[in-house]
Amino acid sequence: MQTELSKELGVEHALFGFTPFPAVAAAISRAGGFGVLGAVRYTAPDDLKRDLDWIEAHVDGRPYGLDVVMPAKKVEGPKNQTLTEADVEAMIPEGHRQFIRDTLAKYGVPELADGEASGWRITGWMEQVARSQLDVAFDYPIKLLANALGSPPADVVQRAHDQGILVAALAGSARHARKHKDAGIDIVVAQGYEAGGHTGEIASMVLTPEVVDAVAPLPVLAAGGIGSGQQMAAALALGAQGVWLGSIWLTTTEAELPSPVLVQKLLAAGSGDTVRSRALTGKPARQLRTEWTDAWDDPHGPGTLPMPLQGLLVAEAVTRIQKYEVEPLLGTPVGQIVGRMNSERSVQAVVDDLTRGFEKAVDRINRIAGRSQQ
Amino acid sequence: MQTELSKELGVEHALFGFTPFPAVAAAISRAGGFGVLGAVRYTAPDDLKRDLDWIEAHVDGRPYGLDVVMPAKKVEGPKNQTLTEADVEAMIPEGHRQFIRDTLAKYGVPELADGEASGWRITGWMEQVARSQLDVAFDYPIKLLANALGSPPADVVQRAHDQGILVAALAGSARHARKHKDAGIDIVVAQGYEAGGHTGEIASMVLTPEVVDAVAPLPVLAAGGIGSGQQMAAALALGAQGVWLGSIWLTTTEAELPSPVLVQKLLAAGSGDTVRSRALTGKPARQLRTEWTDAWDDPHGPGTLPMPLQGLLVAEAVTRIQKYEVEPLLGTPVGQIVGRMNSERSVQAVVDDLTRGFEKAVDRINRIAGRSQQ
Repeated sequence: MQTELSKELGVEHALFGFTPFPAVAAAISRAGGFGVLGAVRYTAPDDLKRDLDWIEAHVDGRPYGLDVVMPAKKVEGPKNQTLTEADVEAMIPEGHRQFIRDTLAKYGVPELADGEASGWRITGWMEQVARSQLDVAFDYPIKLLANALGSPPADVVQRAHDQGILVAALAGSARHARKHKDAGIDIVVAQGYEAGGHTGEIASMVLTPEVVDAVAPLPVLAAGGIGSGQQMAAALALGAQGVWLGSIWLTTTEAELPSPVLVQKLLAAGSGDTVRSRALTGKPARQLRTEWTDAWDDPHGPGTLPMPLQGLLVAEAVTRIQKYEVEPLLGTPVGQIVGRMNSERSVQAVVDDLTRGFEKAVDRINRIAGRSQQ
Repeated sequence: MQTELSKELGVEHALFGFTPFPAVAAAISRAGGFGVLGAVRYTAPDDLKRDLDWIEAHVDGRPYGLDVVMPAKKVEGPKNQTLTEADVEAMIPEGHRQFIRDTLAKYGVPELADGEASGWRITGWMEQVARSQLDVAFDYPIKLLANALGSPPADVVQRAHDQGILVAALAGSARHARKHKDAGIDIVVAQGYEAGGHTGEIASMVLTPEVVDAVAPLPVLAAGGIGSGQQMAAALALGAQGVWLGSIWLTTTEAELPSPVLVQKLLAAGSGDTVRSRALTGKPARQLRTEWTDAWDDPHGPGTLPMPLQGLLVAEAVTRIQKYEVEPLLGTPVGQIVGRMNSERSVQAVVDDLTRGFEKAVDRINRIAGRSQQ
């Protein structure tokens, strides 16, 4: 399963795996795919350094990449000064904080212990945090730098190119994809409606070829709805040079989800059990539908705040929900492909299933096309 | 492009075209696909008879089918008696009628002339209307009977099977698809989120293989997001035995849309210019987003009524909007593939483009799979 892009990156399969877990990223690369570590949850550069060291030690020399989140629009104060996390916290209305207290109390969610920090802060949305991650990452031999929101700033693209690192950016529309091309991006990840995390409204079947046409000759990776070899074949038939999978790794044995209850929810969920909600970050992101997302999406509630306020607002609550495994509220970003995630398997088993399924899908399409099989 | 199903039906391409226009249906069948005439807009059985006669005279002996709409849930009165159209009309609140008068007045939409009937009534949603259509259709050599909402009643399935007619039904989830299988349906059309008309939330990339697995060994047609040969190849890679296309025919030269302004809107629209709205029928149906759908979807408005009330409620208004070509309000059911409908072409040209594109997509997937080309 080779495209120009997979050859350029020196991987066996044109299969890119995005994951917040170093063990999963390394296992994807070892299995012949291209592992991409999501850096958004690292608040301390030293933690990222520790995990990149770990990957280096476990990736058997295979290529891998890093995914950061730099929002296209900065949060700025009245005089355009860069805001600190405390400044942003101060912008959150008290009514929203009360809504969280009330909702958590309704479900009897315990407080964190004294001095216990919220382990889940997505301050990585803020550019200065992402930049501190990059300062660490550029010391490692990463082959790809992906940005999940908008194009990265020009100096970051330049710095990556100077080090021979390809730059990828996610897009939910042809218009966004063209902006990436104009910004000097090397690879566009077309993120369909069905994908986990931040998504637009256009489904992969329509989005992928639109983005391919919009940015040609740049390579496009298809993301959203891909968890089988058939879906991989479909994405490549649509003109993608590879596939970008995120959700499917969440239930691998190498993943380190914070809660066994959450793993069980993922294994039990059907494709209709996700929702595109602003509850987690302030921008529409597909995730498990829970009573927590319902509360935020309720027209009679206070509604969500814009990014990055919503992420800061809910950070401690999400930590508490995860720590105490409060089942009705417990969720995670995941795509509609969750309906196919029905057993815990190793990353290698997932990759084997994907590549075998791809070959079978190619056999089938050749039979339909009336071409004899090789 | 042959599957077991296309061979069984005796067509050259496993390509099913749904259309409200007899000239389009006949042209699809003549081009080697399988034309399916949508019957929902016929209120008088004689009109349907006239158009089926026309198709018979123009289809060159090729097979074709009919699509009706029988809602799974009947509208029933307090004593379960069958309701007439007048009974249903009486269930519509005056506030909703006033909202329509106000909205049309705001845009200066003229009244119909005295005695001029609403040409667009979707009373075909009501079972008794669909049954009168079927009484006509069973006199013709149709090869396929499709039902757009739920499984048809058992006696209708039996009557079709007695005449050697295959029965298809649309499904937006694996659960609905299994119900169809239990009801003795022969073919399931998996209607993805991106499709025009009534749709669920699951995108084709995820829905198609789910439905294939759910109803195996029944054949599945993929619907939603398909307007190119690449997309056809993708749908077949996902396990479908054929594709079901509706939107793409709307801008063919054989189509008879009521308004040139509407044709221009379709040609200009991008994939992001549709919305899943209850404005037209009371159930979520994808259509062009217009100021009319915005008015119905506005949380400060009266909201929509359930099927079939909404369809009756808006029938006259839609006729007026179409007749007087009131641009900001003018819409039609159409899928996200509208972004690719950028020129008026003949049905034959569309089919040629689809089949050529399919062959090229198969070439590409074989190169990626490392298989030499034939």
